[in-house]
This record gives sequence, structure tokens and C-alpha cells, in this order.
Amino acid sequence: MRPVTLFTGQWADLPLDELAGKCAAWGYDGLELACWGDHLDVDRVLTDRGYVADRRSMLEHHGLGCWAIGAHLVGQAVCDPIDARHRAILPAEVWGDGEPEGVRTRSAERMKHTARAAAALGIEVVTGFTGSPIWRLLYSFPPNDWEQIDRGYEEFAERWGPIIDVFETEGVRFALEVHPTEIAYDFPTTRRALEAIGPRRGFGLNLDPSHLVHQFLDPAAFALEFSERIAHVHVKDVKRRLDGRRSILGSHLDFDAAERGWTFVSPGHGDVDFDELIRALNRIGYAGPLSIEWEDPGMSRERGAQEAVQFTRTIDFEPSYTAFDAAFIE
Amino acid sequence: MRPVTLFTGQWADLPLDELAGKCAAWGYDGLELACWGDHLDVDRVLTDRGYVADRRSMLEHHGLGCWAIGAHLVGQAVCDPIDARHRAILPAEVWGDGEPEGVRTRSAERMKHTARAAAALGIEVVTGFTGSPIWRLLYSFPPNDWEQIDRGYEEFAERWGPIIDVFETEGVRFALEVHPTEIAYDFPTTRRALEAIGPRRGFGLNLDPSHLVHQFLDPAAFALEFSERIAHVHVKDVKRRLDGRRSILGSHLDFDAAERGWTFVSPGHGDVDFDELIRALNRIGYAGPLSIEWEDPGMSRERGAQEAVQFTRTIDFEPSYTAFDAAFIE
Amino acid sequence: MRPVTLFTGQWADLPLDELAGKCAAWGYDGLELACWGDHLDVDRVLTDRGYVADRRSMLEHHGLGCWAIGAHLVGQAVCDPIDARHRAILPAEVWGDGEPEGVRTRSAERMKHTARAAAALGIEVVTGFTGSPIWRLLYSFPPNDWEQIDRGYEEFAERWGPIIDVFETEGVRFALEVHPTEIAYDFPTTRRALEAIGPRRGFGLNLDPSHLVHQFLDPAAFALEFSERIAHVHVKDVKRRLDGRRSILGSHLDFDAAERGWTFVSPGHGDVDFDELIRALNRIGYAGPLSIEWEDPGMSRERGAQEAVQFTRTIDFEPSYTAFDAAFIE
Amino acid sequence: MRPVTLFTGQWADLPLDELAGKCAAWGYDGLELACWGDHLDVDRVLTDRGYVADRRSMLEHHGLGCWAIGAHLVGQAVCDPIDARHRAILPAEVWGDGEPEGVRTRSAERMKHTARAAAALGIEVVTGFTGSPIWRLLYSFPPNDWEQIDRGYEEFAERWGPIIDVFETEGVRFALEVHPTEIAYDFPTTRRALEAIGPRRGFGLNLDPSHLVHQFLDPAAFALEFSERIAHVHVKDVKRRLDGRRSILGSHLDFDAAERGWTFVSPGHGDVDFDELIRALNRIGYAGPLSIEWEDPGMSRERGAQEAVQFTRTIDFEPSYTAFDAAFIE
Amino acid sequence: MRPVTLFTGQWADLPLDELAGKCAAWGYDGLELACWGDHLDVDRVLTDRGYVADRRSMLEHHGLGCWAIGAHLVGQAVCDPIDARHRAILPAEVWGDGEPEGVRTRSAERMKHTARAAAALGIEVVTGFTGSPIWRLLYSFPPNDWEQIDRGYEEFAERWGPIIDVFETEGVRFALEVHPTEIAYDFPTTRRALEAIGPRRGFGLNLDPSHLVHQFLDPAAFALEFSERIAHVHVKDVKRRLDGRRSILGSHLDFDAAERGWTFVSPGHGDVDFDELIRALNRIGYAGPLSIEWEDPGMSRERGAQEAVQFTRTIDFEPSYTAFDAAFIE
Amino acid sequence: MRPVTLFTGQWADLPLDELAGKCAAWGYDGLELACWGDHLDVDRVLTDRGYVADRRSMLEHHGLGCWAIGAHLVGQAVCDPIDARHRAILPAEVWGDGEPEGVRTRSAERMKHTARAAAALGIEVVTGFTGSPIWRLLYSFPPNDWEQIDRGYEEFAERWGPIIDVFETEGVRFALEVHPTEIAYDFPTTRRALEAIGPRRGFGLNLDPSHLVHQFLDPAAFALEFSERIAHVHVKDVKRRLDGRRSILGSHLDFDAAERGWTFVSPGHGDVDFDELIRALNRIGYAGPLSIEWEDPGMSRERGAQEAVQFTRTIDFEPSYTAFDAAFIE
Repeated sequence: MRPVTLFTGQWADLPLDELAGKCAAWGYDGLELACWGDHLDVDRVLTDRGYVADRRSMLEHHGLGCWAIGAHLVGQAVCDPIDARHRAILPAEVWGDGEPEGVRTRSAERMKHTARAAAALGIEVVTGFTGSPIWRLLYSFPPNDWEQIDRGYEEFAERWGPIIDVFETEGVRFALEVHPTEIAYDFPTTRRALEAIGPRRGFGLNLDPSHLVHQFLDPAAFALEFSERIAHVHVKDVKRRLDGRRSILGSHLDFDAAERGWTFVSPGHGDVDFDELIRALNRIGYAGPLSIEWEDPGMSRERGAQEAVQFTRTIDFEPSYTAFDAAFIE
Repeated sequence: MRPVTLFTGQWADLPLDELAGKCAAWGYDGLELACWGDHLDVDRVLTDRGYVADRRSMLEHHGLGCWAIGAHLVGQAVCDPIDARHRAILPAEVWGDGEPEGVRTRSAERMKHTARAAAALGIEVVTGFTGSPIWRLLYSFPPNDWEQIDRGYEEFAERWGPIIDVFETEGVRFALEVHPTEIAYDFPTTRRALEAIGPRRGFGLNLDPSHLVHQFLDPAAFALEFSERIAHVHVKDVKRRLDGRRSILGSHLDFDAAERGWTFVSPGHGDVDFDELIRALNRIGYAGPLSIEWEDPGMSRERGAQEAVQFTRTIDFEPSYTAFDAAFIE
Repeated sequence: MRPVTLFTGQWADLPLDELAGKCAAWGYDGLELACWGDHLDVDRVLTDRGYVADRRSMLEHHGLGCWAIGAHLVGQAVCDPIDARHRAILPAEVWGDGEPEGVRTRSAERMKHTARAAAALGIEVVTGFTGSPIWRLLYSFPPNDWEQIDRGYEEFAERWGPIIDVFETEGVRFALEVHPTEIAYDFPTTRRALEAIGPRRGFGLNLDPSHLVHQFLDPAAFALEFSERIAHVHVKDVKRRLDGRRSILGSHLDFDAAERGWTFVSPGHGDVDFDELIRALNRIGYAGPLSIEWEDPGMSRERGAQEAVQFTRTIDFEPSYTAFDAAFIE
Repeated sequence: MRPVTLFTGQWADLPLDELAGKCAAWGYDGLELACWGDHLDVDRVLTDRGYVADRRSMLEHHGLGCWAIGAHLVGQAVCDPIDARHRAILPAEVWGDGEPEGVRTRSAERMKHTARAAAALGIEVVTGFTGSPIWRLLYSFPPNDWEQIDRGYEEFAERWGPIIDVFETEGVRFALEVHPTEIAYDFPTTRRALEAIGPRRGFGLNLDPSHLVHQFLDPAAFALEFSERIAHVHVKDVKRRLDGRRSILGSHLDFDAAERGWTFVSPGHGDVDFDELIRALNRIGYAGPLSIEWEDPGMSRERGAQEAVQFTRTIDFEPSYTAFDAAFIE
Repeated sequence: MRPVTLFTGQWADLPLDELAGKCAAWGYDGLELACWGDHLDVDRVLTDRGYVADRRSMLEHHGLGCWAIGAHLVGQAVCDPIDARHRAILPAEVWGDGEPEGVRTRSAERMKHTARAAAALGIEVVTGFTGSPIWRLLYSFPPNDWEQIDRGYEEFAERWGPIIDVFETEGVRFALEVHPTEIAYDFPTTRRALEAIGPRRGFGLNLDPSHLVHQFLDPAAFALEFSERIAHVHVKDVKRRLDGRRSILGSHLDFDAAERGWTFVSPGHGDVDFDELIRALNRIGYAGPLSIEWEDPGMSRERGAQEAVQFTRTIDFEPSYTAFDAAFIE
Repeated sequence: MRPVTLFTGQWADLPLDELAGKCAAWGYDGLELACWGDHLDVDRVLTDRGYVADRRSMLEHHGLGCWAIGAHLVGQAVCDPIDARHRAILPAEVWGDGEPEGVRTRSAERMKHTARAAAALGIEVVTGFTGSPIWRLLYSFPPNDWEQIDRGYEEFAERWGPIIDVFETEGVRFALEVHPTEIAYDFPTTRRALEAIGPRRGFGLNLDPSHLVHQFLDPAAFALEFSERIAHVHVKDVKRRLDGRRSILGSHLDFDAAERGWTFVSPGHGDVDFDELIRALNRIGYAGPLSIEWEDPGMSRERGAQEAVQFTRTIDFEPSYTAFDAAFIE
């Protein structure tokens, strides 16, 4: 049975110690620490040996493990067109004066530090986003210049290649959470992004089914097609609520709006077929954590986090090690 | 039976006279003239009386009517963030030096001229796009500043209000084609856009079911909800091709790609329920043209345009003028 | 290929001669004459030899045949609880003073005359309704006394038994149109009604798929189960329009209301699988007419009747007389 | 978390004390007392102070609360056409000589007393039925006189208006259980009934999803549309069992028949989407009880009532009080 | 509540004593003993009184009952065309020299002994397979000689008739597990097989829903149609995984292959509607065991067997003994 | 537009000249001649020059072309286990004494002759079956020895390799009709068969959608995956008729049985999505004939063949040669 962890990104308003205490009490095996809030300060990891020891002992105190850290926010800025929204999600020193290329460069440097910090903590996976120079061209009107799309994948590879060099030097894998707004968000874009970056051990994927199912994609098929790249897995659910008046596109509405055509829900409340997903993970030999990224704009967070860990233990199971009819044969 | 017209926008590579001859031979009742290519030059309409007479006589020669003209390309630039793609769809004099605010201003002025040109031609509807300051914020990550979304609707109203003033002065209606990339593309965004612009006779909608059905929206319900605004109707079809590996979002692929989750198809080859749509149009009393916007990246254009006019005549029908059981009662 | 006829019940506002002219021009093979309006006067058939000759010659003049006559309205009153609505559908002499038992008795006598009239005209089938003493108890609240339900089937058999005696004497079959509001409207109620009336040649069924499909019933399965009873077939279609807000029950709204969950539509516009139905009719050897009962509250009647005869010829086909693989074998 | 209660109507064969003991042991928070059997005698409440104290102390003894009482049976007779079935569900003194208008008048008076009794017990909601003068006209054949339907809604308002006056005087809400056989059973009829009775605080709705889902209606959409009227909620489930031979209409069969197209089932065994319903209740701020009306003709009642309370606790959850991405932003 | 047993056929690699200990610890009520491995030696039962006592006391020691024994492997050889695969599943003495008719004859004799062994053990049901002379003719190409198919059912009856004589003499029922590769695997073949063997008490059916649902068959309908023959029930589940590239036929792939269109899964993980099945079993009065035949090529066997017994207790329930509205009526 | 041909295999009871006359009158462009009946005698082609000229002139006389000949029956015997059914489909000289290996050897030789005959006739494609040593092992019970399955693919390659040598020498392609009972009948088996035979130009596929769709397979996806192998295409349709009592497996019933879960139907009457298939054929550049293999056990053959050629012309269309938005750009 795989360890069940909580991604702390949506809980950054709580001090880590408080959150860790809750998670331990709720039955979690560990945390996927977000590199924001007070949860994990990448710079301090690299400069303050006491901080590293302190984080470790705090987790140990609560009996929690850590198999991955999450660097979504800084990663997003590496190859995004930068706007005011990024300011809200970046550390002040990364945002700086907000000049786009400067922001992107500093974000890339911070991602290299994040690899180093992971290594310093003895952690082998950094989950995160990449941003995308071309996401905004999703719908081709005015008609796209398709060379610009090609160029977007190249730019992604140019900006992330040197970062992945550091990851590989440090023995850490970056795990891109395939997600709308990122360079890869479905099957064809994942194929193209992987083709652009090349067959590098240091560049893996974080499979989060909730970002696939509202697109009508099959997470189990995704696991099988990209099996060698699956470095981390999120447990998160999504529900389609289509009734002829709600769009699958989101309607420029926040996730809690009644008129939205889909939204995130606590695991088990939505349309993800977790049974098929677990079978696919067993088939590809994924042995890492099942990390709950808990987001449900219609449910109390604390209730949800407790329910989710129980649910996740229910869906996980070990594969068979014998053919089912072997025992028939004397 | 409503007149069946062809929107000429996808045929702008053909001289209008040649296209009109084909359409007449194929059985069309008229054309929805695109304001680009050589099809309709808005400036010449306003400055060259001979041009107006010439366009009219040419249509008459072919026995074709005209109930609407299409100004999608210039309209798009009125409140879009401007980029290189706009250059390809705008007249040189509207693009000018490409400075965004200048492009937007010139596009707005050209739209006012378009209203005047329609009036000069005796045409009561201009179909088109509005652009959108906020389309690119479709997926809220980095998390949207929702006041920015609110501000987007306001900006739309500010930029289009003065244009609609001219439309109303000229006795012409603008008909926004509800469509991704525009300020309104589904039910909630149409509600908000109409609320922003206010209850103005000059601002109507062009109902094109192909832009709704891949979003899982019901075009008949759309017609009923926005009945007073329906100023024009397109006949265009779309097919969802979801198999667990193709995304509903489009995958940054051109419309002809095998891996796309949906694409446009010749009318009758897709998922639009035209029977329900005709019933809704009958119910709201829509008496304008059924204008075929023919786009099918997998079919020969000439074959398609012929098939489409026959198909459209098949689906259209007049409503009943008696209750079905009246005749039971002696 | 079976003859295609039009049921004239919904056209009783037109004089029969006018209607017959239209039908002939539209390509019909014949008419299923309604016993109301001026279409067929049962009493005159029995008393006025000239009338019989006149009706016959008029049909011959238009080249039309007649395989069945329709007596739905009077039949309805045979075992219904009588209320004001019946007055509107009954001849004045049958309604009389409106005292319920008198109305039922006179309706039963008129049905016997109808059998005699059919025989006089050389017609072997009378389609119609039976009414039902228990339809109003459809939903069991206040809780039904189930003996009352049993008693309803018995009453049906008591009232219709003597009528069917006359039908059998005359060599004519009554064909109950299985339909909500009648003693039989689905599979279990048809089974019970047939059990009550017994295995009589004179009591058959008029299979109209439109009354089955909004109940989610399979008309082909109906044809196979009740094969020996199928004496006549209607071609009529129905469309379910369920969207979570429209009820399958009808909402006490007339058939043309936008909020209804289902309504009748011109054949081919709805949910009936006519291909399966024709295959079932071929299997059971049904050789009678396909009689179009045209009702579509959203379509022009004249257009619909023309479209429907063409559609019906398209769907009908003859069965195979050889096994498909016989020719493989030398 | 909302209190979970049991509606005692289906348990009226058990003395209340015995039933209360069972419910307490099974984990219920309270009871929705039926005004029949020995469960609650409305007349005694108004005349016997000791009875009130006794009922209260009995509930307290079992640790049970009471948020609503159920007056379905007498309510049904207020505007129904009266027949023998009503005798079985009415107290002898309300039935009297069974003359319909007298029965309706006495039922209306009893409903006023029920409001007074609720107030005397400190209870703010009376659930129940209204009956309907027009339910039996569900299927328009013989063709309805639509003015008669209009008149039915008016009669409902005339008969219930004075009753609601008393409810409002007493500070109690009547909560109509929207249900076939009642004046309101779906969206359009609820709209019309509310329009007829007017925007009165004293007239609310009891949302029972089991009566909506076999009609293919969406209970969550119902909660949102009629949000201000939702005064009480039942937890009850229903299963559609359509296979082409079973009708959605019920076939004049009792609920336990294998040939029925739908039937009631223990909560969680059917087609109700309780997750969506809870989200809708959270959205509209419904804070009252989730009252289990347990009916499953295929399951042992005692097993079912125990299973249902556990199930109901599983589906209920509190809404979120923070935006899901707030914690992303430092 | 019915007893829950485990069919030991897939556990024949474990000594029965060890398996019984596990099952008792996991909460099973009993075992359906396979007549292979060391689980049950039919010959020893008939020849070694100590063996019978020993088996009984061993089960008693673990607190386990036994309501049926499973003789699938030998039964398969009774009317199959024999090939090398049978050697692997037959005892050496039954296989003998492998000459087909000899193998079939010895298998038939062994089945008679199995009936005698069951009687000796006080067990009333023997589950098993029959084999089929015609299974290999499933798809009619080269075109079948349909008389050969008829002859197949006759041969089945000829070979099994004498075996069933012994079963009836011993007061034991044989329960054919309806299953592809057997003489009966769906509704029509079960009808024909039963017609061939005749209405004999000694020939019953073992209803295993997993063999029906991948064929798109309804196990509850199966239970109702063949109610008098249902002698035993398996709890086993199956999942269809059709995505346009995986066939429903199996692709000549083993059950654990990712490309298969369906496979067996642990109960509750698949497409079987166990709720409907339990309702059908209640309706026909089946009171025997729910015997888990655990096969899931993607799950650890020990985990699965524990999960399955809990699941089975969850789905089983007792029927109602009162009409649901009886309590309404005072 | 591709030529539309009729496969003559199901018409072998008619002399070719008569059939050709009918097909010409019905509007066919050509014939796919079956190598049985009097349609095409392979031996005579190779030995009788007059016969070749005669066949050619006869087709020319009717204005018919021939792009492929069909050798299904002899092909079937090349690697099948031989039984009595093969006798009925083989020429007497190929059957000989019926000794299996001899039959297989003679069938293989006849297939080589067929390649030579095609070359002699100037025809580049021979459609047909291969037979299969392992089809009968479809359902793995008794459990398959998977090495035997592997061996089956090898045997296929061994037997067909030398035949394909001759095809390649002659410049003709063999086109296996992927079909149950053949070595390849779905995606995985086609992959394995192609892997076994190797990447040989002489071994292609005949895509017949009717054999895929009852397996829930997507013929368009099949065309794309095996694009280089698609040498010929059949137009044939199939309908699934699943209602919970009819199996997808066929029930050992002939194709005309009412209880079957699927059967072949005239093109357009079934579940094949021909629009998607044509798009896929356009995408892969397939320019050969659309050959109607007409089989519908419920329809008159002559009517069907006429309807089918009209239908096939309706569904076929040429691809686009321009991007749909090219014309937008001035």
C-alpha cells in the first residue's frame, strides 16, 4: 500500500507545525510540502543547516514522511507571459520589479535552487508547473500562426533544459503536473512537450486525474502511455455538471459558482475512476505516494481532508502476483 | 421557409462575382457578405455610389438577396489585446503601426462605418465579433483577480457602447456571434455581457450552434433564453470525438488534426440537434435567414456548400398555426 | 411494401373530399377514415345506401384505398368516467343528457353500429380507444385499493365483450390503440386487458409507437410479444426533451409548451426506432397499412403530411426470403 | 451537520414510544412526527396540556428532537376530488358522511388546527400534501379544457389561502411535499402553484428528491430555483428500472411489482445524486433536518432504517468558508 | 441474511486447513469446496469414512459451514471435445490415455461419484460446468449446419441425463454455472439446454453474474426467468473497459492484459448491479449461500478476499414483509 | 469520389451476367468478384485465355469495373482446423478426401493461383480470409496454454508466408478481412498477426466496419492505426440490439433470430459511423473502391442492394485541400 500524503499548498495559511499535527491525527503518512507560506523556504534550506534539521525533526515528531515537495508557483513563472496575477503568487524577491524577462530568469534560478534544496532534504521529487508561452493561444482565433505554437514548445525546452540539468546533477526529478495553463495539459501536448525536452530522467510528470477528467481524458490511459515519466501522483477529483446551460469551459467563473460546468470535488465525489487509475499504477509499477491535493469549493476543508485520507486507503490495493487460474491447475 | 444564405467569409479567396454565380447555381437564396477580400469594401460603400449600385446589381443579376453583412475580423480588434495574429486579419489602414490602443480605436471607428455602410445598402444586420479583454483569463491560474474579470465586461461596454449608438442611429443591429475568444461564449458570459451593454435594441446576437455544442450547451435553450436578442442565425455543425485520449479543449492543434477532441463539420455531420433549434426559432418568431457558415476541414468545400444548402432546406419548417387536437372537436 | 395511409382524425376540420384530394396529390395510398367530422357518418352508412356508394366512389376518384376506420372518440366513452370533456368529443345524440351510464351505454351501442358500418363498407378493421374506469388511479395515492384495479379490468371486459360479439359476427376486428388514458397503455396493462377480454379474434391492437416511446417502451418488442393481436399500425413519432427541469409526466401543459418533457413530432423527428419496428412487423407478418397519424404541435400540418408519406416509404422494406449465407455454399 | 430525523408516517403501526426507542438506538437525532396513528393527535395537542408535556418528555427521554410534523393525509383531502380511498386515510370525524365538499371543509379546518398544534409544540414546520383538483387531468385526453386547468390552480389558492393565514398567524410554515397527485409535482406546476398562492412566508416546500428523479428532474436544480421556499427536506431514493418493457408511468401496479419501471428504494440504492443535493442545500443555506422517509418495498424496514441513518450522515457535509485558492496567495 | 462462503477453486494451491483458517479469520461463514487440490477428494469421500469425518471436523473447528461443493473441472470434460488443455485440469485417472470418448466417459462416472460424495457429506448442491460439444461453433463461419447445433443440445442431454439420474437418486442438485464455453451461457442457450434436459429437479443453475454482464445481460432478469432452477449463487464481478480499441471478445489475451475489453474484478469494482440481483433473489426466495468466487487479475488475492466478504455483507438484505403504505392506513 | 462496387459473394446463386446487369442498372461502378459460383473460376483464368477475355468483355459490356476479387472461402481453409463445414464452402478438388492437412495444403496452393489469376486479370487486390489455428481458443477455459496461442500466430505466418511470396511476385496484395474466426479480428490480434507475417507489401487488410462495431471497436481508429495496410474497404453495417436478455456473443443463433444481440443490417441501418470512417479514409489517402458486402437477414436483397449504392454515394466525400481559415486572411 502506497503512503498517503497531503499536498500542503492549499493550507499555506496554516503554520506547518499546526497542519502537521492535524494530518498526523487524521491518519496521513506524510506531507508533500509546498514551497510557500511557512511550509518550506527553499533559500533557508540551502543556507541554514539548522532549518533543515528543524523541518526534519518536526515531521518526525508527528510521525510523517515527505516524498516530494511542491514548487508550482515559481515554476509557473518560468515560461509564462508575466502579468499582475503572478505578483500575487511569487515571493517578492522573485517578482522584483516585475519586468517579465527578469521574473522568468529569477524563477528559473529559484527552480534550480529548489532541486538543490530537495537534494539537501533527501527528497527525490519536486512537483510543479512549468508555465506556457502559448497557453493563451488555446483557441485558434484570430487564426494561430502554427509556427508560433512550435516555437512555444521550443521556448519551453530552452528555458527548462538548464533547470533539468541541475535536477539531474542533484539526482532529483522534476514532475510537471499536467494541467491547463501549462505547456502540457492533455495527451498531444504532453507528447509534444516530452519530445521537445527530450528523453531526460530528470523531467517527469505528476499525474493528477482531476485536470484530465473534465477534458474527458482517461487518467489510466495517461499512466500507461507515459509510464516511464510518472514520477508522482495526486489524488484529486472533479465533477462535470453539464445540463445544456453550463459550459465545459468554465464561463470565467470562480470554481464555486453554481453555473460552472465542472468543478473540483473531494476525492470520491466526482467522475474520476480511481479503480482504473490504481490498476494502471500497479501495472506500471508506481510505488510512490498517493498525494491528496484537496480542493472542493463546496465542502469544509477539515472534513474533506479527513474523508479523503480514508477514501484513498480504500481505493488503493496491491496487484496480484499470481495468474488467477494458476490454482485451477493441479 | 426562411431564406438560406452563405456566409462568404471562408470564400474570400474567390472574387465575389464568381462565388455568387456558384451559390446561385447551388440554390442559395442569398449571401451574408464578408467585409473583407473583395466581397464588401466598407469604405467604398460610404464613398463610392457606383460601388453600391454595382454590388446590388451583381447580386440581383444572380438572383441573390442579402440580409446581413459580416464584420468579424475588424470587430475582433475592438477590445482584444492586440498581437501579431491581428495583423493578418485586419486591413492595413486599420492595423497601421500596430500600437494596440490605436488598433482598437481604428477598429471601433471602422465598425461605426460598417453600420453606416449597412444602412446605405439597406441591410439591417451586421454580424461580427467583439473581441474580449479577458478571454485569455479563461482558466483561473494564476488565480484570477475577479475584479479584473468584472472590469473586462465594463471595458467591453465602454468600447462598444459608442459603436452601438451609431448602429441605433442607422437603424441597424449588431449581432455578436457568441463564440470562444469573444466577450460572450456561453450562457453566463452572454448574460453578463448583455447586462453590461444594457437593454439596447442595437446590440443583438448571432446564434451559431457550432460554437455552443462542443461546450455541451443547448442551442435551442439559448434561443429561448435570449429570444429578444437573436438577430441572426448561422447553420454550422460541430462534432465531438472524445475517446479518452482527445481533449475537449483543442490541444493547441489546428482544426484538421486527427487527435483533436472536436472539430467543425459540414451541417448534418455533427452533434447539433437542428430540429430542436428550428423549433426554438419558430417559437421565438425568428424570420431572418439561415446563414450557412461552411467550415469542415475534412471535406471538399464545393461539395460541402452544395450539400449544406440542401440539408438546410430539409431541416427548416414552418410552425403550426392550429392546436393539434382542435380538429378532434366537432 | 405496405400501403401508406393518413388517419383523418386530426383533419376533421376539412371536408373529406378536399382532404382526399390533397392526400392523393401528396402520394398517399389511402385513408384511415375518422368516424367524425364529415369524414364518415356511421349512422348514414347503415341507413343510406347512396352514402356508402358515394364514399366509395369519392375515394376511388382520388385513387385512394381504405383499410380501416377510426372510432376513437366514441370508444373512449364506453368505459370512462364521463365528464365535461367527453361532451366536446361525442356526437350530440350519444352525449344526450350527459348522465354517465347513459352516455356509456349509447357509446357502446354506437360501437356495435360501427362494426356493422365497417362490414357494410367492406373494411376489416376499426381502430379506436376503449376508455378506462381506472386510468385516474395511475399513481397510487391515496393508496389504491388493488381490488378496485382488478375490478376495472373486469368492467372493461364486461362492457366491451358484447361489442366484440358484434365485431366477430360482422367479421371485423376492433384494434385498440394502446395509449395512456386507455385500459391498456403499456406491456403489463396490455397483458391484463387481453387476459380480461380473453383470446378473441375480434379484439386486436393498433400499435402506435408514439404512445410507447415516451414511456421508454420498445415498440418492436411490443409487436413481437403481442404479435397475434396486431391488427393495425400507426406511424407517429415522439421526442423526449428531458433536461432535468422538464418532467416526463407532462406538467399539465398542452403539447406545444416549451417546458414539456416530451411531445409528439412528425415521423422521423423523434425517438422512435422505425427500423426496428419494421423488422418486427416483417417478422410477425403484418401486411396491413402503415397509417400516419400526423401530430406535431410545432410544425405546419400540410408540410408535415407531405414529409411523412415520403419518410414512411423510406423506412418500409420487405423481409428477406433467403438466408444471407446460403449463396456462400456452392 | 444537519440533524437526521425519521418521518414516522410509514411506522404508524408501531406505538410512538416503541418507535422512538428504536430510532434512538439506531442513531437518529429526532423524529418528523406523523399526525396519525398514535404518533401525534392534533386535537389532543390543542385540548390536553398533559398530552403536550407527555409527548415532549417522551422525546426528551429518548434524546430525540422534533423539527417538523407531517400532515400529509388530511392535507390531501383539502382540494382533492374525494373518493373511497380517502376514507382509508382520514380520521373518522374528518371523513364524516363522506360528502365531498364537507370532507374538504373539515380537512381544511383540521389543517388550521395542525398549524396551531405545531405552534403549541414549538415546532415551526408542518410538512404535507395539498391534494389537487386537476391531477386526474394529467394526460390531456379527452382534450383538456385549459381553462379548467387554470381554474384548478385558483381553487388550490382559494382553499389553501385561509389555511396559510392561520399558519402565518402562528408563525409556522406549511411545507408542501412536491409529489405526483399534488397541485405541484415538477418545475412548471410548482411555479404555477406558487404564483397562485402568492409570495407568502407561510407556504413553503418539502423537497423530497424521490418524487422528482423518476420524472427525470434534478433535485439540486429544484433547490436552487425555489431556494426561498425550501422549508424541509426528505431523504428518500428512487430507482428507474427501464428495459423497454417496463413503463415509467407505473403500470397500475403496486410499488413492489417486478414489472414496474421505477420504485422507491432505501437511500443510496437508487438514482438520486445526493452529493449534488447537499451542495445545493449548502448553497441556499438550508439548515433544517434531513428527514428520512423510508420506503423500500423490497427491503426489511428495520434494516433499512438503520442503514439509512448511517448513509445520511455520510452524504451530509458542511460548506467551505474559504475560497480554495486563497491559500495559494502569500 | 444469507451465509457468505468462498469458492476454494482459485485457492487450490493452499492446503485446505490453511485456507479455512484464513477464511474464518476474515469473517466467512463457510466454504464452497472445490473437488480438486487437496480440498475435496471425491473418491476418498466414498471410500474412506475417516476422511469424511476429518473434513467435517476441520470445518467445524474453524466454525465454517459448507452448502455446496464445486466440480467444475471434471464436469467440463463430460461433453467437451477433448484437447491438451483438459489434461491440465483433470485428475490423472480421469485423463487416462487421453482418448476423447474415454475421457468423457470417465468424467461422467466421476460426476456420478461426486453426487454420491455430496450426499455422503450431507451437502445438497454440486456446482459445476457441463462442457459443450458446440461452443467452438459460436461464430457461424464457415456457416454452421444448424442441425449440428440442435444435435449439440441433444448430446448434452444424452450425456448428462444419466448423471442427473444419480443426482436425483442421491437427493442432490447439480447447479450448472452458466458461462461461456458451456452448453448454456446466456438466455437463449439456457432456455434450450433446459428444454433438452427437461424439467428435472436434479438439474439446476449456479447464477454467476460475472459471466453475464460482459455479455450485456441482466443477472436479475436471469434470476426471475429461471427462478425455479436457481440452486446456487456466485458473487463475482466483471468490468467492461471498452474504448474503441479493446474488443468485447477478449482478443486471445489473458485476463490480466491491459488491451482486453473486459476482465474479472473483485466484487464491487465492476459493472454488476448487485442491488438489483439481491432484490431478484429475494423475490424468488433464494435462501442459499452467496458464494464469492474471487478472481481479479489486478489485485492481491488476500486483500481481495477480505474486502469481498465485507462487501457481500453490505449488499445483502432481507426483503420486506409488509406493504410500504400499509402503515399509512389507520 | 471512390468507385462503389458490390461484393458478389452473397449473390453466387445468380449467374454473373444476370447480376452484372442488375448492378449496372442500380448504379454500381463495378464488382468485387467472388471466386466461387460461376463468378470467377481461378483455374480457368490461368488456363483459358478466352475465359479471361470473356469476363473482361462482359464487365465492359455492363460498364462495370473490377478492382478486387474475393477469395474468402478457400483462404479460410489455409490455416483452420478442418471440419465438415469447410466441405460446404470448398471446391470439390480442394476438399479432396477431406484429410485436414491435405485440405490446408491444397487451399494454400489455390490461393497462390488466385494471386496469379488476379495478375492475369490486371487486378491488384485479392480480398479474403486466412482461417485461424486458434480462433476456437477464444475464451480461455479450460485455461489456455499461452504458448499455444503464440504458436498459432507462428503457424499463420508459416502457412501464409509462401502464399504472400507469390502475391508479391505477381504485384498483387492480399487483403485480409479482419473478422471473427480469422487470425486477426480486432486491434491486438491484428497487431500480432502483422508482427508475425512481417512488414510485407503483399499482406494488406480489408477493412470491413461491420465486423468491428459489434465488438465495440472504432473502424476509423482502425484505419488510422493500420493505415499502410488498408488495401480494400467494405461498406457493411451492423446493429447492436442489447436489452439485457440478448447476448453480444450471438447465442448460437443464426443471424436472423430475434433473440440475437447483434446482426448485420443494410448500410445506414446500423451503428457504424460512416462519416468518421470516410474522414479516416481521406486522411490515410485510401483511393480504392467502397465495396458493398450486402448482408441483412431482415431485408429483401434486391431492395437492399439498390438502397446501399445510393447510401454509399451519400456518405463518401472528398477531403479539403485548403485550411478552413486560410480564406480569412487577406
